[in-house]
Amino acid sequence: MKEMTKQFLEAAFAGESMAHMKYSIFAEEAEKKGLKKLAKLFKAIAYAEFVHARNHFKVLRKLSENMSDNVQTCIDGETFEIEEMYPVYKNAAGFQDEKEAVRSTHFALEAEKIHAEMYKKAKELVEKGEDYSADKIYICPVCGYTVEDDVPESCPVCGASKDIFVEF
Amino acid sequence: MKEMTKQFLEAAFAGESMAHMKYSIFAEEAEKKGLKKLAKLFKAIAYAEFVHARNHFKVLRKLSENMSDNVQTCIDGETFEIEEMYPVYKNAAGFQDEKEAVRSTHFALEAEKIHAEMYKKAKELVEKGEDYSADKIYICPVCGYTVEDDVPESCPVCGASKDIFVEF
Ligand SMILES: [Fe+2]
Ligand SMILES: [Fe+2]
Ligand SMILES: [Fe+2]
Ligand SMILES: [Fe+2]
Ligand SMILES: [Fe+2]
Ligand SMILES: [Fe+2]
Repeated sequence: MKEMTKQFLEAAFAGESMAHMKYSIFAEEAEKKGLKKLAKLFKAIAYAEFVHARNHFKVLRKLSENMSDNVQTCIDGETFEIEEMYPVYKNAAGFQDEKEAVRSTHFALEAEKIHAEMYKKAKELVEKGEDYSADKIYICPVCGYTVEDDVPESCPVCGASKDIFVEF
Repeated sequence: MKEMTKQFLEAAFAGESMAHMKYSIFAEEAEKKGLKKLAKLFKAIAYAEFVHARNHFKVLRKLSENMSDNVQTCIDGETFEIEEMYPVYKNAAGFQDEKEAVRSTHFALEAEKIHAEMYKKAKELVEKGEDYSADKIYICPVCGYTVEDDVPESCPVCGASKDIFVEF
């Protein structure tokens, strides 16, 4: 693919991903305010943006037939976030005395460390022709802390109660 | 908020949104290949990235208590895509003879036109203290074409059959 078209599609993928995310956040807020049909509108259009992002992603040849390659993409992304991106952002937020930004980057950094390990395990299994190992995965809805099989009484990263963890 | 911290959080929001999107696409692929637990891992971690993105979004004060402001954000984004971004990207892809990129940008452009109109209607209703008007919204899973209440026999943008439309 020509380089300029590639750059444009990558920007479009970023734009669609952020639109999808914003609409999903707004859907949750509309739901909280009892605006059920507005929440549905946000969710439906968020799905349309998912379709657009997936189309661009495929044209960019970023979806591999080989599932191990897809998992490697995840490992690479998480590793960059752990080793460089979030440590630098968190450090800068602390240096500028922006407490809320220190908190939101700290929460992300802690979860990404776990994600990288899970994806590494997933890659080993996929390469042996096996499915992933955990039956249940739980996510803290406050900080994104991620844990398999058993939920602790309270979140080790943010202290949220076990009751509000989201089960997958 | 300090400008540099703001720029970093905006980059982190983009990164989390793209990670969420990639993992959601990979989840679908894992499902197709019968890797149910791997699909669950992708979905769970995609949700953790949603939590991270939502945290950064709130720290950036981009989530308004006033739902009309949130809908206006959507109108602004869709309008930019319709009036500038997608026409330019589609034109460039055609100029570089990249047929698949012409197709994926054309599909997005056509849907965004509909999204902008729906959000404008939503804004009027929200400002009158009312919920959105449509009971059902349908999305074409091939191109993202979006329609209320009644699905046409085939998608007017990509020709996909009525049967595969996703209902919200
Ligand atoms: Fe879109
Ligand atoms: Fe992650
Ligand atoms: Fe937590
Ligand atoms: Fe994250
Ligand atoms: Fe849109
Ligand atoms: Fe379509």
